[in-house]
Amino acid sequence: MNKHALLHIPESRFCFPLSKEEVVIRLRTAREDAEAGLKVKIIYGVKYDYQKERFTEEVPLKYEDELYAFYEVKLNITDVRLVYIFQLEENGKKYYFSEDGLTKDYNYEECFYNFFQLPYINENDVMPMVDWMPGTVFYQIFVDRFCIGDENKDMSYIDMKWGDKPTPKNHAGGDLKGIIKRLDYIKDLGISGIYLTPIFESESNHKYNIVDYKKIDPQFGTTEDLVKLVDEAHKRGIKIVLDAVFNHCSDKMAEFMDVVKKGKDSEFYDWFIVDGDKLDMKKRNFECFAHCEYMPKLNTANAGVQKFLLDIATYWIDVADIDGWRLDVADEVSHDFWRMFRKAVKAKKSDAVIIGENWHDAYPALMGEQQDSIMNYAYTKVCLDYFAKERCDEKKTVWHLNSILMRNMEQVNYMMLNLLDSHDTLRFFTEIGKDKKKLETALALTMFFPGTPCMYYGTEIAMEGGYDPDCRRCFDWDKSHWDMDLMNKVKELLALKKNPVLQWGDVSIKDVDGAIRIVRSFNGKKAVLAITSPTAYTIEMDI
Amino acid sequence: MNKHALLHIPESRFCFPLSKEEVVIRLRTAREDAEAGLKVKIIYGVKYDYQKERFTEEVPLKYEDELYAFYEVKLNITDVRLVYIFQLEENGKKYYFSEDGLTKDYNYEECFYNFFQLPYINENDVMPMVDWMPGTVFYQIFVDRFCIGDENKDMSYIDMKWGDKPTPKNHAGGDLKGIIKRLDYIKDLGISGIYLTPIFESESNHKYNIVDYKKIDPQFGTTEDLVKLVDEAHKRGIKIVLDAVFNHCSDKMAEFMDVVKKGKDSEFYDWFIVDGDKLDMKKRNFECFAHCEYMPKLNTANAGVQKFLLDIATYWIDVADIDGWRLDVADEVSHDFWRMFRKAVKAKKSDAVIIGENWHDAYPALMGEQQDSIMNYAYTKVCLDYFAKERCDEKKTVWHLNSILMRNMEQVNYMMLNLLDSHDTLRFFTEIGKDKKKLETALALTMFFPGTPCMYYGTEIAMEGGYDPDCRRCFDWDKSHWDMDLMNKVKELLALKKNPVLQWGDVSIKDVDGAIRIVRSFNGKKAVLAITSPTAYTIEMDI
Repeated sequence: MNKHALLHIPESRFCFPLSKEEVVIRLRTAREDAEAGLKVKIIYGVKYDYQKERFTEEVPLKYEDELYAFYEVKLNITDVRLVYIFQLEENGKKYYFSEDGLTKDYNYEECFYNFFQLPYINENDVMPMVDWMPGTVFYQIFVDRFCIGDENKDMSYIDMKWGDKPTPKNHAGGDLKGIIKRLDYIKDLGISGIYLTPIFESESNHKYNIVDYKKIDPQFGTTEDLVKLVDEAHKRGIKIVLDAVFNHCSDKMAEFMDVVKKGKDSEFYDWFIVDGDKLDMKKRNFECFAHCEYMPKLNTANAGVQKFLLDIATYWIDVADIDGWRLDVADEVSHDFWRMFRKAVKAKKSDAVIIGENWHDAYPALMGEQQDSIMNYAYTKVCLDYFAKERCDEKKTVWHLNSILMRNMEQVNYMMLNLLDSHDTLRFFTEIGKDKKKLETALALTMFFPGTPCMYYGTEIAMEGGYDPDCRRCFDWDKSHWDMDLMNKVKELLALKKNPVLQWGDVSIKDVDGAIRIVRSFNGKKAVLAITSPTAYTIEMDI
Repeated sequence: MNKHALLHIPESRFCFPLSKEEVVIRLRTAREDAEAGLKVKIIYGVKYDYQKERFTEEVPLKYEDELYAFYEVKLNITDVRLVYIFQLEENGKKYYFSEDGLTKDYNYEECFYNFFQLPYINENDVMPMVDWMPGTVFYQIFVDRFCIGDENKDMSYIDMKWGDKPTPKNHAGGDLKGIIKRLDYIKDLGISGIYLTPIFESESNHKYNIVDYKKIDPQFGTTEDLVKLVDEAHKRGIKIVLDAVFNHCSDKMAEFMDVVKKGKDSEFYDWFIVDGDKLDMKKRNFECFAHCEYMPKLNTANAGVQKFLLDIATYWIDVADIDGWRLDVADEVSHDFWRMFRKAVKAKKSDAVIIGENWHDAYPALMGEQQDSIMNYAYTKVCLDYFAKERCDEKKTVWHLNSILMRNMEQVNYMMLNLLDSHDTLRFFTEIGKDKKKLETALALTMFFPGTPCMYYGTEIAMEGGYDPDCRRCFDWDKSHWDMDLMNKVKELLALKKNPVLQWGDVSIKDVDGAIRIVRSFNGKKAVLAITSPTAYTIEMDI
């Protein structure tokens, strides 16, 4: 047995409660050992009775990646004070795995020093699901490029013809009324959630440098338009998630301008992180996003900033009944702030979703007290490696998919925003050399993988696009240009997610005869996806 | 190379900031690979420049346990957005270790998908040290058994003669005035911190079932006595830490009695976790500590309970200027509550210390936003295995010591409350068969190991004691019974901790020629402890 491969971390993604009655336990071993027949059992009990009374249950092998195997069991418990060790059996020999590592014997007399424990399941430490997430399919809209709905507005800011090549700074004219106008189209695609890039007042077309967080940008509409959009969306069973740009603001925001003017004498001086008594835009002596001096970093250690941002977070739930927030550059904002943010948002609307932008293993933000989910760029990468670059075969892709599932608790996995592309990447359709069969196969995978698919606007009409700003082209509303076969196929695939098996089903991802085989099972029913190449797949539902 | 042994977890005990300028990075490998000469480098840079500009630094081998080696480096950084990968060199071959695992090449073009990152060091996420902790030596006092100071109090509750064998329920009469009386004795020992078991109103001798959290138990004294104790202690440079029993209370607490009386109609019903509309003491249909119905569990998910407990936590800082709290059964109380507790306590007194009771790897509570430290029973276990049971040799003990250091961030290690015994264990002196040389050697180890030693009252006079209640015997104040050689040796050893090298020094723990060799280094000075057997050691200071 490869002892070095053994890993279990109590009170983590390796051991977490789903409720006060159900706990998930995972143990990692070397894959080779699992394939050679290693058997794992859990010997568990109630903390204060463990020396006398113990229960044993098999822990089945569930996930495999390139190096490791993951055994997983869901324990039904009747006492919230769980302690346990593992028993491993290899070639008829038994070993014990506890906080002291792998041993040939285990002395229960001294167990108080070295059992593993989930010492007490307290209600306020259990991460609840946002129940609507696993059954939702999101559509991401870059607002300026989707649809012009308000024909009466001041169009003078529009400096490109609809359909022209995007530049970093030009404006095409898309707005909230445009989205309202297209809600039936969106609904008809099979979409049940919309994530909008920022809509608050800002000079740019992307609006990630916000001047006024309580005002809809006039280019996009008014508060009334947002209220109507959410209302009309809700009537159609569609959720609306907005983009919270809380890492930084615009250098034109009043509070920052005040610091520019008054330096250390400004009451907002500590809202930012300034090196020196005066702000110097040229020397850029303040912290900002990336190297963009027009996006000064907000100091979320400051109580004033905290109050300001939490007010915004709850304001738009109050005013427009939005269904959650996507958090821009979430990984650069303090965890301390996100904890407060979660409390404020969930107190206002308990099933509002919180989705961070984080391109990496985001476990530090996904432990239950901060974010529910992230934009799953690790999933994007797996799809690029298989479908676009074709540098991973089916077997490796299976390993990678399992590996990213093991990064997080089950609740999080079922809320991950799984995307093929976004406003921050090349269009997936461009990455795969405009191969529609590949797109279709990738969408099928996205419907079967646990979590919430998020389709970038225009995927259904095979929109192309290179890196930003090219990935932010105008939607082509001329139906005669559309490939209706593709669109119908997209609808067919998106509709799959209405099946509870693909929402809540247990997942198994294996390499079977050279195919990626994903089986989801729920209440005695199964759904099976088999991908035999980047362009070929079969689906069997409800078997 | 044993690929399976490689472990690095960003934003964890494997990567954490000490400040906005300094970050500790650890990488785990197999010990055999390290011993065969594996070299590790870190290739790091600023997130937004990494594709163009990178820096390389060696990561030295620092700790070894039975299975693993830990490489560690402290990086001095000038930008708070750190990204990195590792380069491993084995037999002249180079490998790269990133979020994608071990690879032969690394493509910096795609680094945004798979570098490791500490995305931004926000001030409010950095765990600060309680600066007085590394230089403090604690003395734990079980109040009823230490000293009777108030000769005028109502003695009718005392039901044993001072020095009689303790039973679970008898009272010997020790009190706060008794501690005040002995402060010079304590100071003279070399003690600079006192941790008192609970002192609030309670029927029991241990007072872990509290009836009134705002009242000093009349057996122990008054609020004025506590104020005076803290004041006199502070005058002598001694800190006072009290025991916060927040997991559960007494079944005689008014709020619980109200629920006993009124059931669901009580305004305090939700303060407890009751199964049913009525409380039934016999059926014990409510959650409680262990199986003790006289210690009902407090529901820290309830806002009323939160307010009640946070008020107590800050009240005693306000009233008596105490220096921190030891948290009873900390691991069974919700993390969510401890986060609030930390904010409340640190807002009131920023250098108050928070020490949890947790016998296990307590990392889930020691990530910076909950507790500073725990009672380090894992350290106790290492000492028992080496000094008492003699089932681990010097080499294994070195491994175990290194292993427990790798459980936590450096800040936490330097605040860990390292103890040989407590009111919840057998007396260490009894465990080691009353071998004074073993006691001396174990105390020497405790002074050299990073953290804050905590000596149980009476260790210095070789007090004996089996399991609770026998470990809670009365202190023998008859000096003619004392072994002055032992006491002087204890004083000599405790005095070592005054040396900044043993407070702040970098640590190296190695097995050298069959000895446990601990080297602490600070500002060019070194202190070296070599333990060649459980009864033999040498110390070299300031070399």
